Amino acid sequence: MARPIRIDCLQYANWSEKIFRQMRKGGVDAVHVTIAYHELFRETVTRFEEWNRRFERHADLIMPGYWAEDVDIARKTGRTAIFFGFQNCSPMEDDIGLVEILHRLGARFMQLSYNNQSLLATGCYEAEDPGITRMGREVIREMNRVGLVVDMSHSAERSTLEAIELSTRPIAITHANPLSWHAALRNKSDDVLRALGQSGGMLGFSLYPHHLRDGGACTLSGFCDMVARTAELMGMEHIGIGSDLVQDQPDSVVDWMRSGRWTKGVDLGEGSKANPGFPRQPDWFRDNRDFPTVEKGLRAAGFSAEDVARIMGGNWLAFFEKSFRPAAP
Amino acid sequence: MARPIRIDCLQYANWSEKIFRQMRKGGVDAVHVTIAYHELFRETVTRFEEWNRRFERHADLIMPGYWAEDVDIARKTGRTAIFFGFQNCSPMEDDIGLVEILHRLGARFMQLSYNNQSLLATGCYEAEDPGITRMGREVIREMNRVGLVVDMSHSAERSTLEAIELSTRPIAITHANPLSWHAALRNKSDDVLRALGQSGGMLGFSLYPHHLRDGGACTLSGFCDMVARTAELMGMEHIGIGSDLVQDQPDSVVDWMRSGRWTKGVDLGEGSKANPGFPRQPDWFRDNRDFPTVEKGLRAAGFSAEDVARIMGGNWLAFFEKSFRPAAP
Repeated sequence: MARPIRIDCLQYANWSEKIFRQMRKGGVDAVHVTIAYHELFRETVTRFEEWNRRFERHADLIMPGYWAEDVDIARKTGRTAIFFGFQNCSPMEDDIGLVEILHRLGARFMQLSYNNQSLLATGCYEAEDPGITRMGREVIREMNRVGLVVDMSHSAERSTLEAIELSTRPIAITHANPLSWHAALRNKSDDVLRALGQSGGMLGFSLYPHHLRDGGACTLSGFCDMVARTAELMGMEHIGIGSDLVQDQPDSVVDWMRSGRWTKGVDLGEGSKANPGFPRQPDWFRDNRDFPTVEKGLRAAGFSAEDVARIMGGNWLAFFEKSFRPAAP
Repeated sequence: MARPIRIDCLQYANWSEKIFRQMRKGGVDAVHVTIAYHELFRETVTRFEEWNRRFERHADLIMPGYWAEDVDIARKTGRTAIFFGFQNCSPMEDDIGLVEILHRLGARFMQLSYNNQSLLATGCYEAEDPGITRMGREVIREMNRVGLVVDMSHSAERSTLEAIELSTRPIAITHANPLSWHAALRNKSDDVLRALGQSGGMLGFSLYPHHLRDGGACTLSGFCDMVARTAELMGMEHIGIGSDLVQDQPDSVVDWMRSGRWTKGVDLGEGSKANPGFPRQPDWFRDNRDFPTVEKGLRAAGFSAEDVARIMGGNWLAFFEKSFRPAAP
């Protein structure tokens, strides 16, 4: 049997030829990359421009991903398809018309909020969560229309449950783990995960140490057991990988992610005074070359080859197929 | 025989359902519409947004045109395909990376200058024409790469000849007439037209009164005789229609076109103190419903049915086919 399709539904690196070659070594067919945390529209366009230059320079390693079919094209041509997403709604500013513009430019995932309250929804670090806003309802409808996936990875509980309810197309939590496995503000309750699975949505399991039991010391078998328990809760069709892999970024970048321009101080987010920067990855998942290791771990945990193929990329591919095209009028 | 393909390679109207219905009445399969004169990038994005709303509201009459194939789709579904263009390079500001972004958003034609000197080339109203600038050479190469057509309709003679020479893909003068037929700063010399034809480029004949012999009193047979003489000069494959039709625009719009933000005064452009606003159209070409009249005029002037079909749209379609896709790497 050919190796399974491998899709990682979230990474954020200081992109370079080295990393693209690691993607190829790890046999990663598609990656959803974050291109905005707090960037407004024009800044986000510059991020797209930078990716255009990368596609030109590294045409033998990567290609833009617009549609599910591009995963197959990438696979057949030995490249990795890059799909774009935002971890916040800042790129659309206050203009609902930018939803379609950003989708046209290649955006395929957009979080409605990032830790804080946004114009659309509440972030997971706010004390209060009043749910999806008036504008949020309009924007979810527009995202559903054009084919931009609602991502609630950094959103708060009520907002997330309401987004699942309001969205007429399945939504995603591209990178998080169950709260019941590891208590972190960013991880998700069983209620959220159950509603997500029942609505046809997808969870991408995070490999970011702050989302893992025991952090960087988390074991592969511990991670895979958690995957097995989540499959029981959500259904085998609704889980995949969203590693949240951060590579080669200076700590100034984690500052930008956490503090943006919303505070004059420093927000430590998931970090702490003792550990303010990027945390150390588990030694069984250091970079893109370790996807086959995760695959072996899942097999060892008792998953069938077919189920491993689903988790490693098949489920995301099926989700891409139903999510990215504009809805029928 | 089915009616010929009809493509108008320049219009600029105060768009409305009324005008879209006139396009359908006139059997116009595709129109290249101007969406920027002096608009910078973000303003231009708003123009794309406004068109997205029109495509949503009037999906039975119009559709976005990205590729030559869309003309066939429009024809088969009884709609008009709308292709986008800029009459100036202002939408790309000082950022060559925006060329690919704007192409992705749907831009298919961009003038290197509009009457005045730009960062790229000289306009036809300047006293001096130093030719294509350093940045202009870079941008022409990038436009060639991504498939954005160089349009020199409002550029000066030397800049235009150099653009024809420098561009590795054929360029267009989407809306102008021969200077030898009607002396206007906007019309083009035989040298330019000959070089344009020899390089595989296209001229779109303008029906804007200031570009016509006798202005609004120009006769259909006089116009068609001019077409015949230009066909002899350039070759039958290099001519089409670019009517420069302006409809339902208030005179404030002609002020924006001519004066933008570059003067605190008022530039009358092709107008005059006695006639500062939009001029009156010839009575045989008032709006999109009159394309069949032009067709009949060309037949009466002695063109074969095949040649009329080329002029009315076949030549533009062939040009679209070779111009809009990215160049092979």
